[in-house]
Amino acid sequence: MAYRDEKLHEEKVFKDPVHRYVHVRDRVIWDLVGTKEFQRLRRIKQLGTSNLTFHGAEHSRFNHSLGVYEIVRRILINFADRPNWNKEERLLCMCAALLHDLGHGPFSHSFEKVFKLDHEDYTKQIILGNTEVNQVLLRVGPDFPQKVADVINKTYKDKLVVSLISSQIDADRMDYLQRDAYFTGVSYGHFDMERILRVMRPYEDQVVVKESGMHAVEDYIMSRYQMYWQVYFHPVTRSAEVILTKILHRVKALYEEGYQFKMEPTHFISFFEEKVSLEDYIRLDEAVVYYYFQMWADEEDSVLKDLAYRFINRKLFKYVEFNPNLQMKEWMELYQLFHKIGLDPDYYLVVDSSSDLPYDFYRPGEEEERLPIHLLMPNRELKELSRQSDIVEAISGKRRTDHKLYYPRDTILKLSDDRPEKKRIFELLYQ
Amino acid sequence: MAYRDEKLHEEKVFKDPVHRYVHVRDRVIWDLVGTKEFQRLRRIKQLGTSNLTFHGAEHSRFNHSLGVYEIVRRILINFADRPNWNKEERLLCMCAALLHDLGHGPFSHSFEKVFKLDHEDYTKQIILGNTEVNQVLLRVGPDFPQKVADVINKTYKDKLVVSLISSQIDADRMDYLQRDAYFTGVSYGHFDMERILRVMRPYEDQVVVKESGMHAVEDYIMSRYQMYWQVYFHPVTRSAEVILTKILHRVKALYEEGYQFKMEPTHFISFFEEKVSLEDYIRLDEAVVYYYFQMWADEEDSVLKDLAYRFINRKLFKYVEFNPNLQMKEWMELYQLFHKIGLDPDYYLVVDSSSDLPYDFYRPGEEEERLPIHLLMPNRELKELSRQSDIVEAISGKRRTDHKLYYPRDTILKLSDDRPEKKRIFELLYQ
Amino acid sequence: MAYRDEKLHEEKVFKDPVHRYVHVRDRVIWDLVGTKEFQRLRRIKQLGTSNLTFHGAEHSRFNHSLGVYEIVRRILINFADRPNWNKEERLLCMCAALLHDLGHGPFSHSFEKVFKLDHEDYTKQIILGNTEVNQVLLRVGPDFPQKVADVINKTYKDKLVVSLISSQIDADRMDYLQRDAYFTGVSYGHFDMERILRVMRPYEDQVVVKESGMHAVEDYIMSRYQMYWQVYFHPVTRSAEVILTKILHRVKALYEEGYQFKMEPTHFISFFEEKVSLEDYIRLDEAVVYYYFQMWADEEDSVLKDLAYRFINRKLFKYVEFNPNLQMKEWMELYQLFHKIGLDPDYYLVVDSSSDLPYDFYRPGEEEERLPIHLLMPNRELKELSRQSDIVEAISGKRRTDHKLYYPRDTILKLSDDRPEKKRIFELLYQ
Amino acid sequence: MAYRDEKLHEEKVFKDPVHRYVHVRDRVIWDLVGTKEFQRLRRIKQLGTSNLTFHGAEHSRFNHSLGVYEIVRRILINFADRPNWNKEERLLCMCAALLHDLGHGPFSHSFEKVFKLDHEDYTKQIILGNTEVNQVLLRVGPDFPQKVADVINKTYKDKLVVSLISSQIDADRMDYLQRDAYFTGVSYGHFDMERILRVMRPYEDQVVVKESGMHAVEDYIMSRYQMYWQVYFHPVTRSAEVILTKILHRVKALYEEGYQFKMEPTHFISFFEEKVSLEDYIRLDEAVVYYYFQMWADEEDSVLKDLAYRFINRKLFKYVEFNPNLQMKEWMELYQLFHKIGLDPDYYLVVDSSSDLPYDFYRPGEEEERLPIHLLMPNRELKELSRQSDIVEAISGKRRTDHKLYYPRDTILKLSDDRPEKKRIFELLYQ
Repeated sequence: MAYRDEKLHEEKVFKDPVHRYVHVRDRVIWDLVGTKEFQRLRRIKQLGTSNLTFHGAEHSRFNHSLGVYEIVRRILINFADRPNWNKEERLLCMCAALLHDLGHGPFSHSFEKVFKLDHEDYTKQIILGNTEVNQVLLRVGPDFPQKVADVINKTYKDKLVVSLISSQIDADRMDYLQRDAYFTGVSYGHFDMERILRVMRPYEDQVVVKESGMHAVEDYIMSRYQMYWQVYFHPVTRSAEVILTKILHRVKALYEEGYQFKMEPTHFISFFEEKVSLEDYIRLDEAVVYYYFQMWADEEDSVLKDLAYRFINRKLFKYVEFNPNLQMKEWMELYQLFHKIGLDPDYYLVVDSSSDLPYDFYRPGEEEERLPIHLLMPNRELKELSRQSDIVEAISGKRRTDHKLYYPRDTILKLSDDRPEKKRIFELLYQ
Repeated sequence: MAYRDEKLHEEKVFKDPVHRYVHVRDRVIWDLVGTKEFQRLRRIKQLGTSNLTFHGAEHSRFNHSLGVYEIVRRILINFADRPNWNKEERLLCMCAALLHDLGHGPFSHSFEKVFKLDHEDYTKQIILGNTEVNQVLLRVGPDFPQKVADVINKTYKDKLVVSLISSQIDADRMDYLQRDAYFTGVSYGHFDMERILRVMRPYEDQVVVKESGMHAVEDYIMSRYQMYWQVYFHPVTRSAEVILTKILHRVKALYEEGYQFKMEPTHFISFFEEKVSLEDYIRLDEAVVYYYFQMWADEEDSVLKDLAYRFINRKLFKYVEFNPNLQMKEWMELYQLFHKIGLDPDYYLVVDSSSDLPYDFYRPGEEEERLPIHLLMPNRELKELSRQSDIVEAISGKRRTDHKLYYPRDTILKLSDDRPEKKRIFELLYQ
Repeated sequence: MAYRDEKLHEEKVFKDPVHRYVHVRDRVIWDLVGTKEFQRLRRIKQLGTSNLTFHGAEHSRFNHSLGVYEIVRRILINFADRPNWNKEERLLCMCAALLHDLGHGPFSHSFEKVFKLDHEDYTKQIILGNTEVNQVLLRVGPDFPQKVADVINKTYKDKLVVSLISSQIDADRMDYLQRDAYFTGVSYGHFDMERILRVMRPYEDQVVVKESGMHAVEDYIMSRYQMYWQVYFHPVTRSAEVILTKILHRVKALYEEGYQFKMEPTHFISFFEEKVSLEDYIRLDEAVVYYYFQMWADEEDSVLKDLAYRFINRKLFKYVEFNPNLQMKEWMELYQLFHKIGLDPDYYLVVDSSSDLPYDFYRPGEEEERLPIHLLMPNRELKELSRQSDIVEAISGKRRTDHKLYYPRDTILKLSDDRPEKKRIFELLYQ
Repeated sequence: MAYRDEKLHEEKVFKDPVHRYVHVRDRVIWDLVGTKEFQRLRRIKQLGTSNLTFHGAEHSRFNHSLGVYEIVRRILINFADRPNWNKEERLLCMCAALLHDLGHGPFSHSFEKVFKLDHEDYTKQIILGNTEVNQVLLRVGPDFPQKVADVINKTYKDKLVVSLISSQIDADRMDYLQRDAYFTGVSYGHFDMERILRVMRPYEDQVVVKESGMHAVEDYIMSRYQMYWQVYFHPVTRSAEVILTKILHRVKALYEEGYQFKMEPTHFISFFEEKVSLEDYIRLDEAVVYYYFQMWADEEDSVLKDLAYRFINRKLFKYVEFNPNLQMKEWMELYQLFHKIGLDPDYYLVVDSSSDLPYDFYRPGEEEERLPIHLLMPNRELKELSRQSDIVEAISGKRRTDHKLYYPRDTILKLSDDRPEKKRIFELLYQ
């Protein structure tokens, strides 16, 4: 039997708290899960620094990747006998679902920003490069790795396949909303996925949803909205991320100015020099990062030492709403006050912004085009979701943004009350 | 106001998936959570290697410690106005609950075995030594740290207090059964804790349970039984633990014979030499262990390299039921066959045994004395649980043991079929 | 001890699927639950005909009434030590919560419409009349029954007390949304009530919500919205209600024209004559209604017989969206066609409208004034919810209405295809 | 297409709180659900008088019947392609599952005892008699109704089919344990059904379970045990049942002695005379029973009046453990004391016994033979469950019995303290 059609002798299952069981019947999927590149995802948390806010959120990307695979598997059972659906794409869809986050590193957001990386690029490299994953995919067919990479990259010719993995109501989002809700313990993030899966239909080049399932989709959109603001953009999580980013900035700056580290930051050198090989990238898992942070908390440099200590021991920055009306003059004053009390404002006075667009219809030509969700009406016509749903219409296309100013309140509170800077800093922050 | 009575301005809560919310009102508790020794528990998984079997089981001891505190807090609300209960012990109970696992290191079980450590001893050292935790406790009173240590050590004079934290139905067990069930996703581990808490009563020197709650307690005992065999003793988890233990043995042996490591195992030296200071102990969190394992997968020594590689990439040993009737002669033969094919049987042929006593009544003088659970009958007499419950009686005092033999099936399968050892090894294993 | 302060020797609990346990400590509450007027609520379903759509929705008003009591009990624990809160009102609040639905009869909505009744009026009568409930309340104090009635009637002087029981985020709504979601099994209806309870504050003459809980309130408002459209206004449920209403109309009309019933409709006479005594009202529980419906399915009158048969055996009407552009001429034609085929359109061609206003801010002077939800800002000012919440703002004050036309599709389908009326009726319905 | 193979144009679903959705694709199933005999199950509670103890337990047999059907449907998906399984039996299995409780009347247990009925006999009559159900089944084939009846009656030739519906781990039990747990809200009744379904295998003439699923089965057996003692045999529920039974006894006795009822008990006559036609049987639903009970609470006969009043208004009997050592002499004394105080002991002093055998292996020749649960071992042999499972072995074959004595405590308490009978009765009851 061709490798692509090979089934396991007995179905294997993974016990999964969110989907109850993840079912594997295909040999290819089983082999992919066993690769070291996929196993590495166990050492990368799904939500980065969120566990410092929600202590349950310690789940890994391994967890989530299996979940996305499982959702796609279930969708495809539903699609199996439908017209418009090409059964040949089944394995491709499931592989792309399983591997879509393969290139994520630890704390991707901060690492990408500081070291100018792109995790999607590494996903592609792992799939196409000299890896165990690549070897498994190659056994399916010589062009199979490229196909998987194309689907994940949204450049695959069959857009219907792409939309299963990447759209405003794809398997990725449906998994992470439920999973992150489960592990954080928040009561948002619940929606009737079973119903959504049952009303999904392949329709020309996209997955659409039967109109009778509209309310389940509304509920999903609201879940998404709440999860963004209650969990993903939680200000305490962002405080940890601010510190993390500043650690990376500092250590890079120190390296560039020839600072002598107590322990050579071997794993980081290629990151500092912005020429990260695939091998370097893969080696840098979350354990390695934590190891270095622990080391750096013992460094001589007081900024690095302090920030690393803060991150490891969760002595985070506090925040105030950033006042957009702050005059340049006042901002400069604040900046100088920080200098005066010995805190480098580049590291200790940080504005962080979050922004979310809960749902959007298609506006071609815009930077980040988002495919709309279409409802399949009883008359077989399509209608864009926000035209049918009052609720979605109400929040559609409305970007919400939030700016916060982070600073080390504990340090400033420890200053003597005699120091005039202390009082003035708080005046400026809380005006 | 005395520090011991100080309340936070507003109650703080932690969102907890198991107990919904963990509530903190006492300044002392809040300060303890903020110490670096307590925060370190975030970097130590509650279930060691179980996440390699149940991918959801990535939760930390931080998680569990807050949970135990919360349960004790709720019990004490119920106890508050009861006779036999000394309200003065409230803070002590809550501190002991919160801190009872403070001395756990990464993969405690294996580390303790190989390096002859005792996590309970380190819990004591952290509470009494020069630590942030100690400083907080000292502010309550000069003898308070010692009291907390005594409760955890079960030597505190008021045995009623001790039995809240350590008994066959204590807050510790009630939390971990539910928490581990939640994160693994298994359907065992559920029982009606709310009911058990409501029927708990302080009674002389122990916590007892009103007879009307007997069935909830039975359900708890059965949960415990199932969790042990379905989760804690899962053979795949034990495979990972076998490998982990062998890594530690190997690296210690190499150190002792003067092996030249590519990277000096600084964090481990004092472990090898069995003189681990508190500071050394605390530094060795799970991230550090993973970091070294990744390093060791690149070592020259083929055993260390192989085992570390296996652990990191989850290429585990397979197992057979260990045949206790295996003749010494045959065992010797197997041993020598392993040598012949180049696998050191000390590392690659490992018997692992698990054993559990689901519930036991008191048998004084035995090594590990276990206090029985007592029911408070309507006539105010006590009855030992197994005398009232058929189910508990049925499993009481019955130790169940299981022996498995672990070996690297993948390696042996890769041997040429020509080699007679291959066939003979499988014959001996599966006879 | 005064009766009002009397506590049960031991707390009693009811096992409740929604709130886990309902706790009763007060003798007064326990006695009220035991009255026959309160026990009667067991024989009245909470959701009328909804169980014909959602088969799980068979729960009674007894169920819900205990739930509302329990929520108020929990809120008051939180309020106990707050300024602005008068502890003396505790028992009053709990009694009003428990008894607020006491006057509901079976299928209240339809009965009230046809027989011009008002369940709130009967609630008052039961509380103030010669009943077991009244006797219990009187033991608390001579003016206590009147106070309870006033709170339920929203005329009580302390508006803070009233707003606990009747506002846009009261205990009543919080219970029924969760309870109806639980029993129907839909995935809407979940919100973080524990959090909402924790952030509720007594503030002058109303209950307000701390701003930090805004998102939990948003989630509650969305739940409410979804429950209305997915459950309460479900078109199949409304079909059963349409039939039920028409049965009552028919039987009343027959009575008025002196029709000779096979069995004298004793229980209904005073309803037909619109002079229903309290005793008559109380006797008419759901079992009695079903008994008569079964009898009526054997009556001579073909309309009554058919409608009763349909209701009992769930042979419901089908519906089409009512076309508001239907010309009077066409409507008349449809009407006459129904006559021609022997279906009295007054009973077989029914327009039913549903309408909901998910949230509204205060518009004084309007017919049904609704008190807005106020957020308590960190600076102790109040802000009306829709000013802070984008989502709520989006749906605030927007009434959504839906019209459906119900008719007996099965009967029409059974007509011979030769009959021109058949084709024309469907043309008119589906144009 | 043959009626038996006809599929609905689109799958229909019922929202079900226990199984999330009940899926119907077969026209035959859909038509059966629509029959009036099946709809009648909506008016019969699954748990009789349990809702007087657990207020959530108001769910109907309609509910449960759909659930059993759904479980069988899922099992058959798993069986579809297995050897040993005859696909032709699929529809038969699903029909038998759906209809297995069709003959249940209201409060079956008490009615059967008093009027010497057998609900299984009525199930057969409904399936084979002149009913809508029979007409639907006949369309499948002339012998199909008989086959369905045979499966339910356990006389069908293919015992494998029978064991799906009736065995110690059948779809019936799996549904009711979970469903009754859900609606009562108790925390027992949970087990991993998804896993059990996955490891079920058709094997010769029975359904067996793969050994790897043994622990899930253990958990199911323990759930069953707990549900029996915590829910089904709850003493308060039994008190209501005792009263109900005594009402029926009384009314029958009155009828037999020619008592003149205020309202002729038309629906009951054939029950009193023990010649109940199918039509009579079907008419007597729970609403009718409640209607009569309400009437009887106004009767002249003081026993009937009192008992009916008690049932309707939940003024139940209290109980003491029945003392099996009570001497005949003392029992006679108690009996006479009741007479003296004007309470007929035949109605007011009632011993009720409950007895359960949680699991049993096969003991041929015994009255109620129970097929054991067999595990399918890796070597394809079968092993009886209790040989493999310590826990099941411990409770296997052990019948547990409980006797309680019910009496109207409230009435006796109201006696003057001067009366010597009062004191003596309590002495005898509580000795």
